[in-house]
Amino acid sequence: MKKIVLTGAAGNLGKILRGPLAAMCDELVSTDIEDNVPDLAENERFVQADLADMTQIGPVLEDAEMVVHFGAIVDELPFEQMWGPNFVGSYNIWQAGKEHGVRRIVYASSIHAMGMYPKTVAIDTEMPHRPDTYYGLAKCFTEDLGRMFWEKEGIESVHLRIYSATSRPGNARALGSWLSADDLVQLVSRAIDTPVVGFTVVYGVSNNDRSPVDNSAAAHLGYRPKDNAEVYAPEILAETGPVDLSDPGVTCHGGPFASATLGVSPMALMGIPEDD
Amino acid sequence: MKKIVLTGAAGNLGKILRGPLAAMCDELVSTDIEDNVPDLAENERFVQADLADMTQIGPVLEDAEMVVHFGAIVDELPFEQMWGPNFVGSYNIWQAGKEHGVRRIVYASSIHAMGMYPKTVAIDTEMPHRPDTYYGLAKCFTEDLGRMFWEKEGIESVHLRIYSATSRPGNARALGSWLSADDLVQLVSRAIDTPVVGFTVVYGVSNNDRSPVDNSAAAHLGYRPKDNAEVYAPEILAETGPVDLSDPGVTCHGGPFASATLGVSPMALMGIPEDD
Amino acid sequence: MKKIVLTGAAGNLGKILRGPLAAMCDELVSTDIEDNVPDLAENERFVQADLADMTQIGPVLEDAEMVVHFGAIVDELPFEQMWGPNFVGSYNIWQAGKEHGVRRIVYASSIHAMGMYPKTVAIDTEMPHRPDTYYGLAKCFTEDLGRMFWEKEGIESVHLRIYSATSRPGNARALGSWLSADDLVQLVSRAIDTPVVGFTVVYGVSNNDRSPVDNSAAAHLGYRPKDNAEVYAPEILAETGPVDLSDPGVTCHGGPFASATLGVSPMALMGIPEDD
Amino acid sequence: MKKIVLTGAAGNLGKILRGPLAAMCDELVSTDIEDNVPDLAENERFVQADLADMTQIGPVLEDAEMVVHFGAIVDELPFEQMWGPNFVGSYNIWQAGKEHGVRRIVYASSIHAMGMYPKTVAIDTEMPHRPDTYYGLAKCFTEDLGRMFWEKEGIESVHLRIYSATSRPGNARALGSWLSADDLVQLVSRAIDTPVVGFTVVYGVSNNDRSPVDNSAAAHLGYRPKDNAEVYAPEILAETGPVDLSDPGVTCHGGPFASATLGVSPMALMGIPEDD
Amino acid sequence: MKKIVLTGAAGNLGKILRGPLAAMCDELVSTDIEDNVPDLAENERFVQADLADMTQIGPVLEDAEMVVHFGAIVDELPFEQMWGPNFVGSYNIWQAGKEHGVRRIVYASSIHAMGMYPKTVAIDTEMPHRPDTYYGLAKCFTEDLGRMFWEKEGIESVHLRIYSATSRPGNARALGSWLSADDLVQLVSRAIDTPVVGFTVVYGVSNNDRSPVDNSAAAHLGYRPKDNAEVYAPEILAETGPVDLSDPGVTCHGGPFASATLGVSPMALMGIPEDD
Amino acid sequence: MKKIVLTGAAGNLGKILRGPLAAMCDELVSTDIEDNVPDLAENERFVQADLADMTQIGPVLEDAEMVVHFGAIVDELPFEQMWGPNFVGSYNIWQAGKEHGVRRIVYASSIHAMGMYPKTVAIDTEMPHRPDTYYGLAKCFTEDLGRMFWEKEGIESVHLRIYSATSRPGNARALGSWLSADDLVQLVSRAIDTPVVGFTVVYGVSNNDRSPVDNSAAAHLGYRPKDNAEVYAPEILAETGPVDLSDPGVTCHGGPFASATLGVSPMALMGIPEDD
Repeated sequence: MKKIVLTGAAGNLGKILRGPLAAMCDELVSTDIEDNVPDLAENERFVQADLADMTQIGPVLEDAEMVVHFGAIVDELPFEQMWGPNFVGSYNIWQAGKEHGVRRIVYASSIHAMGMYPKTVAIDTEMPHRPDTYYGLAKCFTEDLGRMFWEKEGIESVHLRIYSATSRPGNARALGSWLSADDLVQLVSRAIDTPVVGFTVVYGVSNNDRSPVDNSAAAHLGYRPKDNAEVYAPEILAETGPVDLSDPGVTCHGGPFASATLGVSPMALMGIPEDD
Repeated sequence: MKKIVLTGAAGNLGKILRGPLAAMCDELVSTDIEDNVPDLAENERFVQADLADMTQIGPVLEDAEMVVHFGAIVDELPFEQMWGPNFVGSYNIWQAGKEHGVRRIVYASSIHAMGMYPKTVAIDTEMPHRPDTYYGLAKCFTEDLGRMFWEKEGIESVHLRIYSATSRPGNARALGSWLSADDLVQLVSRAIDTPVVGFTVVYGVSNNDRSPVDNSAAAHLGYRPKDNAEVYAPEILAETGPVDLSDPGVTCHGGPFASATLGVSPMALMGIPEDD
Repeated sequence: MKKIVLTGAAGNLGKILRGPLAAMCDELVSTDIEDNVPDLAENERFVQADLADMTQIGPVLEDAEMVVHFGAIVDELPFEQMWGPNFVGSYNIWQAGKEHGVRRIVYASSIHAMGMYPKTVAIDTEMPHRPDTYYGLAKCFTEDLGRMFWEKEGIESVHLRIYSATSRPGNARALGSWLSADDLVQLVSRAIDTPVVGFTVVYGVSNNDRSPVDNSAAAHLGYRPKDNAEVYAPEILAETGPVDLSDPGVTCHGGPFASATLGVSPMALMGIPEDD
Repeated sequence: MKKIVLTGAAGNLGKILRGPLAAMCDELVSTDIEDNVPDLAENERFVQADLADMTQIGPVLEDAEMVVHFGAIVDELPFEQMWGPNFVGSYNIWQAGKEHGVRRIVYASSIHAMGMYPKTVAIDTEMPHRPDTYYGLAKCFTEDLGRMFWEKEGIESVHLRIYSATSRPGNARALGSWLSADDLVQLVSRAIDTPVVGFTVVYGVSNNDRSPVDNSAAAHLGYRPKDNAEVYAPEILAETGPVDLSDPGVTCHGGPFASATLGVSPMALMGIPEDD
Repeated sequence: MKKIVLTGAAGNLGKILRGPLAAMCDELVSTDIEDNVPDLAENERFVQADLADMTQIGPVLEDAEMVVHFGAIVDELPFEQMWGPNFVGSYNIWQAGKEHGVRRIVYASSIHAMGMYPKTVAIDTEMPHRPDTYYGLAKCFTEDLGRMFWEKEGIESVHLRIYSATSRPGNARALGSWLSADDLVQLVSRAIDTPVVGFTVVYGVSNNDRSPVDNSAAAHLGYRPKDNAEVYAPEILAETGPVDLSDPGVTCHGGPFASATLGVSPMALMGIPEDD
Repeated sequence: MKKIVLTGAAGNLGKILRGPLAAMCDELVSTDIEDNVPDLAENERFVQADLADMTQIGPVLEDAEMVVHFGAIVDELPFEQMWGPNFVGSYNIWQAGKEHGVRRIVYASSIHAMGMYPKTVAIDTEMPHRPDTYYGLAKCFTEDLGRMFWEKEGIESVHLRIYSATSRPGNARALGSWLSADDLVQLVSRAIDTPVVGFTVVYGVSNNDRSPVDNSAAAHLGYRPKDNAEVYAPEILAETGPVDLSDPGVTCHGGPFASATLGVSPMALMGIPEDD
């Protein structure tokens, strides 16, 4: 692999991915709206660019074989603020990818594309979208966009519906939804090294006993997570009291996003650290 | 019903709907980016407004019970030109609807949200989206948006996946896909008068022998089309020669949109009159 | 056909069925907990019997080829009051049927076995039960009992999930759910004259435009209803205002039973005439 | 359409099809292992040929656009006797079709490819095969062969799972399974005039109230049968007594073929005229 | 957790559960129709009560947060003998639970609710019931009852379809169906400590190679069994000869219950120890 | 087990199976069209026989309890050359099995019965056939034949859809499709020692991370593969460059067979060693 472009390189997940990606290609170009990232690898180059501006992000994709597209606002904000980075940004990546002959795009989708399904329903990768926020709606938009570019333009894409990618599970919900850093790296690696992916959707969840997702339609990807949030269960459950079953934030896959008002950050309101 | 708002009132389908809608409510407000519509009904009022501009379209929804949202660019154009009317326009309608307490929105979705399915696959209303153009992608976006506003805000919506709404079937494809004017009116009427719709998707196709869609999951709507394109079959088939089975425009539900380049109008290229 | 037994012969639906059933067999034995039924047909005999008492109902089935089992309390009451007629009564019919070599039992099941499904979900005959009341639970119990007697004892049964069997549609819900008297008679006739039924479940709804049920898995029965509640739609919808979408009685198939407190008659509370 | 070839032209169904097919093309070539057919149409030519012998049947397909392949032994016989006409015959038609550039093959498949499904199961066109005889196994073989030639060689085919094609329904089973001559002609006509069919399977059954098949996945074909065996129901059911529910010939779709010994003609044994 | 009530505390499975349950709450109340249980834990209290008598069992639930309902006759007996403990007993638990504000009920359902499915069909938790005995019918009744109390009253429940809970696998069937004591304890623990369960059905089977059940729709529960009957396979299979494929007791999931006469104990007849 | 017959005993897979099979029965009869196999086990006897000739293969099955049928041409050749060994051969085995009272046949089916499914579709055992070659068509034929003999004659069969049975994974495709020798032996052992199999289809693939098949409907068989091709992934992927996404040989399950011309050996053309 000659060149990979990573967007969102300064974000929490971008930080985890930079090293492993650098090891998979001749040249890694890391990009972000932030003005730098620390500790560049030898074969890594950083380019500051605004995803929402084609004149900035477009040229970054020149000669790239694959793009790992993790750049976006990772929160719920008013629609007007999300449109640029989360909607137009996706369009720009695929459109620039088409112009520059990119073979494949690996995209950080999210559980919030499916957040309004009840937790007692196991969700697979072929059910219709049920977004919980504008944030989730942008993920739905990008998945549909990616499918269209595959079917019309032959650009492959893998859409990783990342659930709770945190350093350790933070609450009872995360006993099912946690995605460890190692498993994230494995997931992105499989999305890159599998020879044929076409248009593939896959959930990003560790091998948790309580994992509520069904990746069987993405079996060809070979993602087999190793970590298991259950080791944290005794500690976390000891702190968990009865829940309010009338609260969609409790009963739906989207968690706090499912109960949040559209356009209002649930994370800011509740003091919860970034969830996916 | 006190007040209904109709967007896209100057369009081909808007023209057909104005009279029947006026008969269903105390006041019909017709709106379009065009500056007038002819022959207002007694209880009809026209307001010029740009859907993409909330300051224009927002106030039109004041006191409305329902919105019949048919306003959009009805063609494939570059993404940048579709964003305002077809994406932001939809957001504006739902957001304004929320602010003004609108109960229900009836939306002109399209077959092009599903256009890449092969014609030999009967499509129902629960399969995943497979858009064929940016035009179709905007329909996917709006359907997902509508589902979210139902699940989060309690605003009902009916999404009419209109197929070939023309005065008569124009080619062999339309023997399956034709939607007559009378059946369109019935479909919109059912979308309005059914007491409970929640989030409903339904195909807009007449009672054609060769209808390729399955509306059984929308049975509660009571849409029973009466017209049948088969009466035109002898004439049309006599003019139809062998087809090119390697052309997605021939083999997929989306027809010419399925084979069109993204962002380029298939209708302009092929001299085909507006199809849906 | 030599002998048919009809239970619940004095009930609203029993009255409709007595004549047609008498015409289909050499001898019709009509039975009820009431002490008589008027206007016996020439080949009809009435026997008073309490379904909940095997010593009374058992002997009635002697030499019967088929039983049309419509006897039950047709309302929601406390469980203790329903157990005898609606649960034990069913057991008695099947157990006596086994003892007397009955070939087939046609049972008046009900939409209330499925009443908690949302109206916007088309219900078929293979989805799991979702009863709305003890009344509906007794229907679930009897359907499972009937399946077991078919699989273990070879006694066939047809379970008619009757929806709104009234003389005419009484409200907007009934535009979808109405079952006319003629269609009820057709349905029972098909359940009797079809040579092979095994264990069959079928909804009892007329050919309403807005019919919300899917009988395709019971196609072998040949039930093709003729009446259509839509002729009443203009009148009924004119009287129907906006509905309360937070009320399960509005949004679920079971109607008033879906919002009723378990064990409390919704019909008595709301002054609604007997619904199914 | 320039040229159509009809195999099995001297058979019961071939006789019905010769006239309508002649009217759909410039030249109809009728062929059979019999040495002639009576009353040739003006644009019809007869060629005697043994399907099982490529040197005989191959040249008949020269310049043909479509083949309507109805030639086969229409009965159950020992496997060794069926191999030539029913298996190799099918191979010869597709292989010769490939060599001569035939666009499409319309094949007389049969219910006996699915004959072991219980009658109380509505069968659709996507369920796995369950043949009841070698006769049915040849139909399974040919359907799979046809799918392969479509996917590998681009030769379209329509597989008509003909049920009971007789002049009138002969028994209670046929109340569901009857296919009238007019509906057969419509079905074959649709299989020919539909512009895109790819690989399509469809049941050949009239519009019988008791029709036990689900053609919804073949909706694009536009087959809408008109005749209804129910008009014969009173007469037929009056002669139908209780059935033996332990007999697969009674309880399975395949009827007498389902209970027959493999390789032994059920029709000869039971004196039943040719059933499909 | 303040208080848990365990019914059937003196039964084979109750004995296994008492200790682990006592460790999960402040107070465990064990109850049975037997007059005592040995070796009470420090925080355990025993109350003798007849499940079929609301005046006895009702007060036991006062202040309970959860009920683990394992009390029932664990055998097939005539319906009249099962009605009290297995049907009315379930009603009493849910009705008393409602009166006393119980949050959740964990119920010992059984494979016998699905016992008539063939063993070669993998059974999941969303297929319709197919009970094999009155014993199984009571499980169907209670599952439907539990679903209704969740949907109408908000009382959560988990229904454990326990298969062969014995100390070690006793025959070839148990190589697939065995549930070890440790796995039973894990299953009950998950049913208690999962924060949101709504209405959940799950099979109680160990991690046997030959496990014939599909729990994927209950993935949120996090049940991951550890034991595997396969270690007993060489020994057991060595003693297993050819089986009688015409015997439902051999070919169906329900085993001996599937072939038993209704109302007659298969265990007594065959000298088989209690199976589930 | 008294006697097992193994066909194709001299083939690559036959060689692996002879020892383990000999250990499972009193007498193993190995047969092949080759004239001998080396190193007979003590209880093994070799008989040379041509599968396509009933007079040769028929008598070999005398007194056999089970047949492990692996004999066939393992390549794509013109139909005329495959008919004898791969089609008639299967018929001969089942027909002789019926005559000699064989209880069960274990058959080496192949992925090529499903080879035209895209690799990004996880294939299960209930989807319709999509053969990629005459070789694959013979597998479809035999599976349907086996189902028919089970349903009509009560002869059980297990159809092993073997994928890439090679000593080690040879290319990127095999990272998903590899079947190790040990797992093959386990699979055949389970097909033999499971007491009830009826008609079962199962994929023969190791426990590869990238396994693209879904055996959940064959769970009763207890096949749990142990080997994992992923240990070869670093080495193999390092040699794998970008693939041609327009080549069915790359994108379909059948691999080189999916792109091969019908009747022409893909293995000979490409110098690939025998693949399954």
